[in-house]
Amino acid sequence: MNKPVLEVGERIDQLFSTDVKIIQNKEVFSYSIDSVLLSRFPKMPKKGLIVDLCSGNGAVGLFASTQTKAKITLIELQERLADMAKRSIALNQLEEQIEMICDDLKHLLDYVPRSQVDLILCNPPYFKVEQQPNLKASEHYLLARHEITTNLAEICAVSRHALKSNGRLAMVHRPERFLEIIDTMKAHNLAPKRIQFIHPKAGKEANMLLIEAIKDGSLEGLKILPPLIVHQENGNYTAEIEEIYFGKG
Amino acid sequence: MNKPVLEVGERIDQLFSTDVKIIQNKEVFSYSIDSVLLSRFPKMPKKGLIVDLCSGNGAVGLFASTQTKAKITLIELQERLADMAKRSIALNQLEEQIEMICDDLKHLLDYVPRSQVDLILCNPPYFKVEQQPNLKASEHYLLARHEITTNLAEICAVSRHALKSNGRLAMVHRPERFLEIIDTMKAHNLAPKRIQFIHPKAGKEANMLLIEAIKDGSLEGLKILPPLIVHQENGNYTAEIEEIYFGKG
Repeated sequence: MNKPVLEVGERIDQLFSTDVKIIQNKEVFSYSIDSVLLSRFPKMPKKGLIVDLCSGNGAVGLFASTQTKAKITLIELQERLADMAKRSIALNQLEEQIEMICDDLKHLLDYVPRSQVDLILCNPPYFKVEQQPNLKASEHYLLARHEITTNLAEICAVSRHALKSNGRLAMVHRPERFLEIIDTMKAHNLAPKRIQFIHPKAGKEANMLLIEAIKDGSLEGLKILPPLIVHQENGNYTAEIEEIYFGKG
Repeated sequence: MNKPVLEVGERIDQLFSTDVKIIQNKEVFSYSIDSVLLSRFPKMPKKGLIVDLCSGNGAVGLFASTQTKAKITLIELQERLADMAKRSIALNQLEEQIEMICDDLKHLLDYVPRSQVDLILCNPPYFKVEQQPNLKASEHYLLARHEITTNLAEICAVSRHALKSNGRLAMVHRPERFLEIIDTMKAHNLAPKRIQFIHPKAGKEANMLLIEAIKDGSLEGLKILPPLIVHQENGNYTAEIEEIYFGKG
């Protein structure tokens, strides 16, 4: 009885450039391009300990697992999503490498040792609570998208305590909150070092950003990486995105 | 005797998309692409008052003049460069629109009324004093490139006092000082609102940035504009840059 049971509405998807399978449910929660790009953004440590905060159904951690031998700890507050992630971990036989914790991320240090984490990945809720939520979305999407149960300051605070000195926090977020992200990181001794802006098409404003900060790093030497353009004019993915989705993982 | 006399080593250049002529001297000071891009970055006020800080030989203000009926005040500390700018203004018969002041920019309010400026343009010295200067460069380039006679904080302080509420400061600078630029602007009530990164080629990190801040603006709603790529793979200018240089001014 090793085969995981899919619940109603669930299906198994695959990130095409890898062998990783992931249990999804459009009505409840599915990963988006944000998670894929985040999992390909930081240089992965070869070994050690990686943590994925706000891990949802586990997409970021599962995709990251193909690039490292490090142990990966996922933490997600929502039981329904954590359960999907646990079954995906089993489906991929990755129980030795990946552990799923269902708890509030502010309790992370109950599960990982202080100042021992090499890399933290985070695809957090993007929107402030006061921003109008999409009431049609499921409660699971609502909590994943709005800062109801956590926020930037809490994510940076727990990252600072969990990361090694010179350990890195890599986050995907929205450009309209860029100034606040930088301030909050700096207030928690996390120095932004690499930033990549994602544009939906050439000639369009950025609608996403990837940012990597180093704990206890200097504030000198920020790099703005080449921009990433998602779609061609005709709506197809650009070659860069095709490579990430369909190329070698 | 209206024809301006060129000094030894000087020549008259033209920004190809405009009729504007500019006196240059490679040994002393010539404008670069930075000035051209800055002069095309902000939306120009139709009328009112524009100031160009660190105006050098006047390139930014001269190029801006084709897009606005506003009065333009240039301020430049170096007499040699200010003199070139004055002769360029005369050469283009723009004395009614453009005024050149040779003084330290911290004395700007001796020349323009407080809180009355619509737009400030600035192509400042990029490098901190401690960074190794290029000793082969002329003293004029040295002062234009290194923060010897002015710095970011001074530029933002004088801008804050000179600008109207909701007036704008548009600056070209280097990405490695991006965090400091944002902090310094915010410390002077200048809210960054539009940022464009310039990449020398597709796939290369940004080596320049354009940033526009609004005095007394809110810190919400920052826009990251589409990136500007300067060169094609073969070294030729991209279509966007060709348009700026050779298109309609």
